[in-house]
Amino acid sequence: MKKISRDRLKLEEYQYGLAHHDKIILAKAITLVESKLSSDEQLAEVLIESILAHTGKSIRIGITGSPGVGKSTFIETFGKFLTQQNKRVAVLAIDPSSTVSQGSILGDKTRMEELAKDPLAFIRPTASRNALGGVAHKTREAILLCEAAGFDIILVETVGVGQSETMVRGMVDFFLLLMLAGSGDELQGIKKGIMEMADGVVITKADGDNKKRATEAQAHFLHALHLFQLPDSGWSPQVLTASALQKESIDEVWKMITSFQVHALQNGWLNEQRKKQDAAWFYETIQNQALSFLLSNPAIQEKKLQLESAIAEKKITPPYASRQLMEEILSRFKG
Amino acid sequence: MKKISRDRLKLEEYQYGLAHHDKIILAKAITLVESKLSSDEQLAEVLIESILAHTGKSIRIGITGSPGVGKSTFIETFGKFLTQQNKRVAVLAIDPSSTVSQGSILGDKTRMEELAKDPLAFIRPTASRNALGGVAHKTREAILLCEAAGFDIILVETVGVGQSETMVRGMVDFFLLLMLAGSGDELQGIKKGIMEMADGVVITKADGDNKKRATEAQAHFLHALHLFQLPDSGWSPQVLTASALQKESIDEVWKMITSFQVHALQNGWLNEQRKKQDAAWFYETIQNQALSFLLSNPAIQEKKLQLESAIAEKKITPPYASRQLMEEILSRFKG
Repeated sequence: MKKISRDRLKLEEYQYGLAHHDKIILAKAITLVESKLSSDEQLAEVLIESILAHTGKSIRIGITGSPGVGKSTFIETFGKFLTQQNKRVAVLAIDPSSTVSQGSILGDKTRMEELAKDPLAFIRPTASRNALGGVAHKTREAILLCEAAGFDIILVETVGVGQSETMVRGMVDFFLLLMLAGSGDELQGIKKGIMEMADGVVITKADGDNKKRATEAQAHFLHALHLFQLPDSGWSPQVLTASALQKESIDEVWKMITSFQVHALQNGWLNEQRKKQDAAWFYETIQNQALSFLLSNPAIQEKKLQLESAIAEKKITPPYASRQLMEEILSRFKG
Repeated sequence: MKKISRDRLKLEEYQYGLAHHDKIILAKAITLVESKLSSDEQLAEVLIESILAHTGKSIRIGITGSPGVGKSTFIETFGKFLTQQNKRVAVLAIDPSSTVSQGSILGDKTRMEELAKDPLAFIRPTASRNALGGVAHKTREAILLCEAAGFDIILVETVGVGQSETMVRGMVDFFLLLMLAGSGDELQGIKKGIMEMADGVVITKADGDNKKRATEAQAHFLHALHLFQLPDSGWSPQVLTASALQKESIDEVWKMITSFQVHALQNGWLNEQRKKQDAAWFYETIQNQALSFLLSNPAIQEKKLQLESAIAEKKITPPYASRQLMEEILSRFKG
């Protein structure tokens, strides 16, 4: 039986629950953070600020791959492998959906039944009703909450369709791309840009008849990756084959990620990278909020409506109208 | 021999050249519009405003498809087909490039040698050095310039990799997706979201041994398209097969587009759509410019720097810092 409770807890209850690694409270805290109610937003902000000192200690791993590549099976097996080593694993799944139909690509946590039942694991699909920017924004906060709740490893899952990958890249330490051994044109299916963001590639379903093709694909991708310049981290991206079904080489994947972590901690990149990510997060937020704050001024809003009419009557172009609006704004500034 | 001239013309020279359908002047006008020099920007703005009454009479067609689908060959054959009917055809190619390597995916106009030599055709690859938003912004102005220069049909070409398609969709009347008959998983290669934006799909290279597979793919895509809801235009997307090499069914593609045009003019959608696109262009522009205008105020800039330090020291989160900055902004507004 699913208990639905929309009641909000008190700040101290969230804080206590997170400090005591309570998954139910964590889930409620993420719901709070995703809420669009203004009272919830205020509480969420206070909560996040109050737990900030308890964040940052996990390794944040982005996982992407086209539909059909076996992401769920891989994450389930990989997650179980980690919990067996007594690691606490949180999975945050981002579903950008398609813009027109709002159809959900990712399913829910029933995709990873075993992992979902694991006391050391936490799985959270992100609501898809928001704009992509909105979802990503809340995912960053969900990462912080998971860290405050004591999770050692955060897996941020996304579908390999473009925009969401760039956002996820901007909030994780290690970016893992799952690929399938294909019919020779493996590079066509996935965006070159996503390939370039990867710190590691895993050729999935490397079992049975597929094994040989997977090994061939491994060489192929390794070659392709070497065409790109080395990432800023100085880490040379690796390509592995693995079978989530047969539980083969899953340990290799984790070894790759921990090697990366050691490398990136030693050369100081990880620390720098997280600072850069926070700075980018700030910039992105003010970029998104600036216009609505300006338009909350009635005179600016009025001017905007006038300009919109002029555009509709084809008297002026949108860029010209924009400059007019900006001049109006500047004229209304003190100091 | 390629003559390189960076000299700017006078406003009247651009206007005269465009009015007289001069392709060399048109090319220079687009270069002016793409320039980042502030003096050029001012001249470009005056130029665009002055030609506004002579724009809007073309049909604007977006064409996309994955690399390898034969976009260049298709556009060359389609373009020649149109010029043979005495239509004037402009091709604007957008190359978003990949974010890391800045590598160019599209080539230059040598891809369409025949069309490039055609006196009734004009081909313009868009510079790829800018951010994607920047490129798209200038493409809209390039469309207006081409229309002022008497072009009847504007083809806006883009690579099938995601973000640029949404932008191009926002500036054209008809969106054409080129696909290749594949090995059964045709829908995996292209984003579902791009599929949903299409008013028409053409299965390319439908010749020789490929013909049967193309016809099968046609049925497949038609089925897939019918899973989506009908677009706002009320137009039911069509799926055709064509061979650019054998020049087969190219007339069918044009017939589809003109049918669409009649449909969308009659039900008023085309007019409404263009108004909506202009409104969206305006919003996008002010959204992009608002923050930099705010930050041109020294006090706001100073506050931003303070907040950035606090973020770097992990004293506050980026969303909290953003709200602080917005409050500072509001406090500095007159009336």
